[in-house]
Amino acid sequence: MNKTKEKVNAAIVIIGNEILSGRTQDVNVAAISKWLNELGVKLEEVRVVPDIENSIIRTINEMRKKFKYIFTTGGIGPTHDDITSKSIAKAFNLPYGYHKKAYAILEKYYGKNQFNIGRKKMAMMPIKASLILNPSSGAPGFIVDNVYCLPGVPSILKSMLDGLKNKIKGGKKILSKTISVQTVESEIAKSLEKVQQKFKKVEIGSYPFFRLGKIGVSMVIRSIDKKKIDDCHREIVSFLKKKKLKIIDNK
Amino acid sequence: MNKTKEKVNAAIVIIGNEILSGRTQDVNVAAISKWLNELGVKLEEVRVVPDIENSIIRTINEMRKKFKYIFTTGGIGPTHDDITSKSIAKAFNLPYGYHKKAYAILEKYYGKNQFNIGRKKMAMMPIKASLILNPSSGAPGFIVDNVYCLPGVPSILKSMLDGLKNKIKGGKKILSKTISVQTVESEIAKSLEKVQQKFKKVEIGSYPFFRLGKIGVSMVIRSIDKKKIDDCHREIVSFLKKKKLKIIDNK
Repeated sequence: MNKTKEKVNAAIVIIGNEILSGRTQDVNVAAISKWLNELGVKLEEVRVVPDIENSIIRTINEMRKKFKYIFTTGGIGPTHDDITSKSIAKAFNLPYGYHKKAYAILEKYYGKNQFNIGRKKMAMMPIKASLILNPSSGAPGFIVDNVYCLPGVPSILKSMLDGLKNKIKGGKKILSKTISVQTVESEIAKSLEKVQQKFKKVEIGSYPFFRLGKIGVSMVIRSIDKKKIDDCHREIVSFLKKKKLKIIDNK
Repeated sequence: MNKTKEKVNAAIVIIGNEILSGRTQDVNVAAISKWLNELGVKLEEVRVVPDIENSIIRTINEMRKKFKYIFTTGGIGPTHDDITSKSIAKAFNLPYGYHKKAYAILEKYYGKNQFNIGRKKMAMMPIKASLILNPSSGAPGFIVDNVYCLPGVPSILKSMLDGLKNKIKGGKKILSKTISVQTVESEIAKSLEKVQQKFKKVEIGSYPFFRLGKIGVSMVIRSIDKKKIDDCHREIVSFLKKKKLKIIDNK
């Protein structure tokens, strides 16, 4: 079922009114993104959508054609507002019901007497999905084609990523170097642009910071090619020296 | 130029490789969302897109037709990776260049001698855009039709929201009540679903939490109708009492 797409890229779909309402601060994007960097997969888009079936279906069906991997977070718990599993089944036009293996895992986890209707709901998903095991709280996530469904609770999500590694075929690892300098962006903008024009395949980001009363700029160089990063880095250091700017951090 | 759309809704487009790479933790979504709640505007979607002109143009042109207000964050600074202003001009097919008023503001802010090429770039935008004043660091944001472009630095963004209030025509304020209970979701799932079915126009979210060694569930009731929230709240409290569950927080 796995499609092989040229680019090893990914997108995240966050399913949750609580993020949109401002009640909950998402932290899963950064966690998944860092994990993907290590695997050589580039996160290229994130969407946050409400707990509305049509929104989820539309978004998933659009995204899964555009990106090699889609990760969803949230909406696979036991309550009425957890509608991710059902929506994914509908998006793929697959039968939805008790997943035998998921049911067995949950029944064992809770014990027969405590396996109530709410908990049973967590075994409902596309019945032929592959499972993503959950070492911290039992209820598994699942995979349909290139869509990987994870829970919203950050600690549980993190505990499930480890078991997923061997299911992701990454590309070359994305490397980065960061130089932080005591200056303001406008001071280095022109020189930095010249370097970027010279190294078109390297991604150079410039980010101002205000830390402990100091202002500065971090320049982040990203590429899969270590030599290009090093060459680019050298040119940046060289113009910083010419400008007599103080490098705070270089890693 | 303002379109009047029936729903007073909004979307956020975060423009920034640094969010996608996991380097930077976004906090602007929660800040804008809470501010919008107060104004009676419902945030219905968020997208994070990379610093790539085509991605920005495509996303903006899709979203601005679907939502009443679009807020962009990031990419309006002085460096080469700040391409929001140019991309917005292209999305609307508007002339891009020095914005007279923005130029005057920045020239005054920095002083003629310090107004270098990088800083001048921050005055480049769709030349007929309305400005969003920036009380903390000079460089203004701007508005084209229903698209409001804000910076990415959270403290600066926040300082600019206040001046925007009178430009947003909100609907009824979205009210909410939260009940936090010492229990697990599966214990209350069925009863909560019944309440949700009874109050179809109220949005009830259920969110597990793990705090100071305690586990619990927060139920959040949201609506523009205070009476409906109160009625719904009463029914939830009633089933919690029947189940003899301990209410930790009720606000």
